Amino acid sequence: MHVAVTLQILRATKASKFVKYFTTLPEPKEPTIMSAAVPGPKSLELKEKLGGVQMAETVQFFVDYECATGNYLCDVDGNVMLDTFMQIGSMPLGYNHPRLLGVFNNAKNVKTLVNRPALGYFPGKDWATKLENILKEVAPKGLDNITTMMCGSCANEHAYKNIFITYMRKKRGEDACFTNEEIESAMRNCPPGAPNLSLLSFKGAFHGRTMGALATTRSKYMHKIDIPSLDWPMAPFPNYKYPLDEYERCNKEEDKRCLAQVEDLIEAYCKKEKHVAGIVVEPIQSEGGDNHASPEFFQQLQCICKKNDISLLFDEVQTGGGGTGKFWCHEHFDLPSPPDVVTFSKKLQLGGFFHTSDFRPREPLRIFNTWLGDPAKILLLEQIVTVIKEDKLLEQVEKAGKVLKTGLLQFEKDYPHLVNSTRGRGTYLAISSGTPDLRDTIVGNLRKLGIITAGCGEQSIRFRPALIFQERHANIVLDRLRKVLSEIKI
Amino acid sequence: MHVAVTLQILRATKASKFVKYFTTLPEPKEPTIMSAAVPGPKSLELKEKLGGVQMAETVQFFVDYECATGNYLCDVDGNVMLDTFMQIGSMPLGYNHPRLLGVFNNAKNVKTLVNRPALGYFPGKDWATKLENILKEVAPKGLDNITTMMCGSCANEHAYKNIFITYMRKKRGEDACFTNEEIESAMRNCPPGAPNLSLLSFKGAFHGRTMGALATTRSKYMHKIDIPSLDWPMAPFPNYKYPLDEYERCNKEEDKRCLAQVEDLIEAYCKKEKHVAGIVVEPIQSEGGDNHASPEFFQQLQCICKKNDISLLFDEVQTGGGGTGKFWCHEHFDLPSPPDVVTFSKKLQLGGFFHTSDFRPREPLRIFNTWLGDPAKILLLEQIVTVIKEDKLLEQVEKAGKVLKTGLLQFEKDYPHLVNSTRGRGTYLAISSGTPDLRDTIVGNLRKLGIITAGCGEQSIRFRPALIFQERHANIVLDRLRKVLSEIKI
Repeated sequence: MHVAVTLQILRATKASKFVKYFTTLPEPKEPTIMSAAVPGPKSLELKEKLGGVQMAETVQFFVDYECATGNYLCDVDGNVMLDTFMQIGSMPLGYNHPRLLGVFNNAKNVKTLVNRPALGYFPGKDWATKLENILKEVAPKGLDNITTMMCGSCANEHAYKNIFITYMRKKRGEDACFTNEEIESAMRNCPPGAPNLSLLSFKGAFHGRTMGALATTRSKYMHKIDIPSLDWPMAPFPNYKYPLDEYERCNKEEDKRCLAQVEDLIEAYCKKEKHVAGIVVEPIQSEGGDNHASPEFFQQLQCICKKNDISLLFDEVQTGGGGTGKFWCHEHFDLPSPPDVVTFSKKLQLGGFFHTSDFRPREPLRIFNTWLGDPAKILLLEQIVTVIKEDKLLEQVEKAGKVLKTGLLQFEKDYPHLVNSTRGRGTYLAISSGTPDLRDTIVGNLRKLGIITAGCGEQSIRFRPALIFQERHANIVLDRLRKVLSEIKI
Repeated sequence: MHVAVTLQILRATKASKFVKYFTTLPEPKEPTIMSAAVPGPKSLELKEKLGGVQMAETVQFFVDYECATGNYLCDVDGNVMLDTFMQIGSMPLGYNHPRLLGVFNNAKNVKTLVNRPALGYFPGKDWATKLENILKEVAPKGLDNITTMMCGSCANEHAYKNIFITYMRKKRGEDACFTNEEIESAMRNCPPGAPNLSLLSFKGAFHGRTMGALATTRSKYMHKIDIPSLDWPMAPFPNYKYPLDEYERCNKEEDKRCLAQVEDLIEAYCKKEKHVAGIVVEPIQSEGGDNHASPEFFQQLQCICKKNDISLLFDEVQTGGGGTGKFWCHEHFDLPSPPDVVTFSKKLQLGGFFHTSDFRPREPLRIFNTWLGDPAKILLLEQIVTVIKEDKLLEQVEKAGKVLKTGLLQFEKDYPHLVNSTRGRGTYLAISSGTPDLRDTIVGNLRKLGIITAGCGEQSIRFRPALIFQERHANIVLDRLRKVLSEIKI
């Protein structure tokens, strides 16, 4: 018995110290709904409790994250759901991935977590190496500078500032000093120190909700109403007709129309002395409705930027990290040269942006804050990047995406009065429905069958599964969606 | 031998599974500097490496956080330093506190860390309880609503939005709907949907670096120059003469002068149709120079807000969490009624704000983002709040602060040509020097003796030790500071 106990303890000790992977629950075979409705009674009770301290209207249900596994989550009422939304696309390896659970089974990493430094002053000894080995490893081609932040909004805010700083440096001359008038007026929020510059963004864009980011967000009025803003230009984003191969000529005209307006707006804002310093664009407009534009559109957009000597920023906060089958969505566009700035967050666990050296401010403390990111999140990202490579997850995304997209295209044919305009890359897919109400019905009925999806734009349904989403998961989604569509009578 | 091994393993297993406290290194007796200069050669090498991917000018040295303990950190060159700056005041329990190290020695908490939810849609089952038991437990009196965010800038940005939303709701009428004109103009960033409202802040204020927060930041031009901004009013903040008891009448006049300008600015901005919707203020202006104002000043400021029916926001991002001897610095001001909004971050590990129900937006999705904070940081905060209570750390702060302040006051007398204007509450202390260069010399020479402090404003030195800073630490700081001062010849 002694020996048996010793062995058992040895195993336990080994398990906690040396085994690479935690054990996680196996995925369920399919979703199971236990409560009469979702949210069930326990979720409703918790929602009321949460409502005591904050606005809780948007809460769909409460999750038991201890039981979540892979592509599946379980709510507090015992419902097991296949999650194709994955916390707004921010869980690349799904729930409770053994590699992520293992990260903090390690005293060194726990110390990284507990001693969060002010990275701009007192970084840890391995910070430079971590940036080099993890973030630079996934850097978009040609962008070898990295600025880290905590979230997507802060990434965009500071990237915007970097664009303004660079624009003014060039205008002023590389070695010119700030004038006293600039210094004094900057403190009063007035030109010339706080110059009347603008950023151009697109109708339907979402770039965040802090006030600078919000000035470029153009998706829904509820995000913007009652908040003071800046007079910045908004150009139309291509509104394509689907299927693309049937409407090629008309969609090309749409590209031209939008690009012409971009040029007109740059000129108009130059005339009103609110020069456009840069253009910010999502490779796929996500919150705004999964609106796509062609590689040619983005190539032309870059041409316009180069011609006007202004910056091009790709906001890859939602598209970055592999969901489109490439690590960065803009890699699909075959751009003649790298974009100037690429922002990220969500799947990368922390926020930030990649940029060229040209965008590195020459003076310290201009792009700065207390934490400048979080080294503990980089430790998670390290495992995420490793697993993406080891498990060939970008290939997996392509395979599962093909199955899901093919199924959605079939539904367009079978239920043309209900759904249309299947679009997307990898598993980063969407389909439109006829009306906002119909969209809400489909998303709601899917949830009743244990499938989590989400709306975007006015009447679209978006899929943002984890990178570990497989063909079999796609087939379950399609099976349930067919059931939902076949039961809607209009 | 078998038994011995078994016991050893049992102990190891127990230690990792059941023991409440991790063991941490004991604190060194005093700082020790090993390298000829700080930063030493290894830090310089790492700085060059970091400079390859980002601006690294501001890095003081690289830290070996594995060896840091309590009030002491160690850099990569083997220097052991007493840290009174504590990552810009964001480490309430110092380094590697056993209670914090223990938090993730627990499968449930690791799962919270690894499965970071979109809290607005899919909170975990214990989220409402955690908010109730942890954040509400430390809520400023009278403020029972909580909005969580990731950092201080986002806290301020969304708190500002909440102020604008509330202002417009009252102006429009509680049950009035948005007009089509408002909806349409909001999307174009123009009034009336994006109204010409303003926030009043103070000269010397620091509220963050994202564009909304930056419009209220008025501490240093380098934060603001080249960034477009909003025409918002800036009032003077009291600039007291020290010692306070010698300049009572003159400082009271200073209060009056500043408050009169606040009133004038509210009127002026009303006339230019940029109505002031609220006033944002730090209880102690920190980054701007540790500038204090009297309780009467803040009481009067609240009166002005009430009279004009506008909001009062206390930005407690740096002052909150106990450094002043109370959990919230504004508790020192004996305000007739609670402030409307109090923002926090730093020592609380995540950002956010407390507010009254009046500031809860009536429509969902107006104050929102993907993560809305981070439940893993709440787990750390849970232990921080517990330790503050159990170890009576607010009393500790008072005791250690008294020793430090008494010593600083003595230095004013002994070295009046070098330092003056000792001020502060608890250990949240500062002292001024005669010139910016002299300040930099003192901070630099202290670092050579193993004491980390920091500058603020033009020529002040600020102390932001952890709450576990004790009288003996204060005495070491004073000892080294006396040495530094006695060796400066001017």
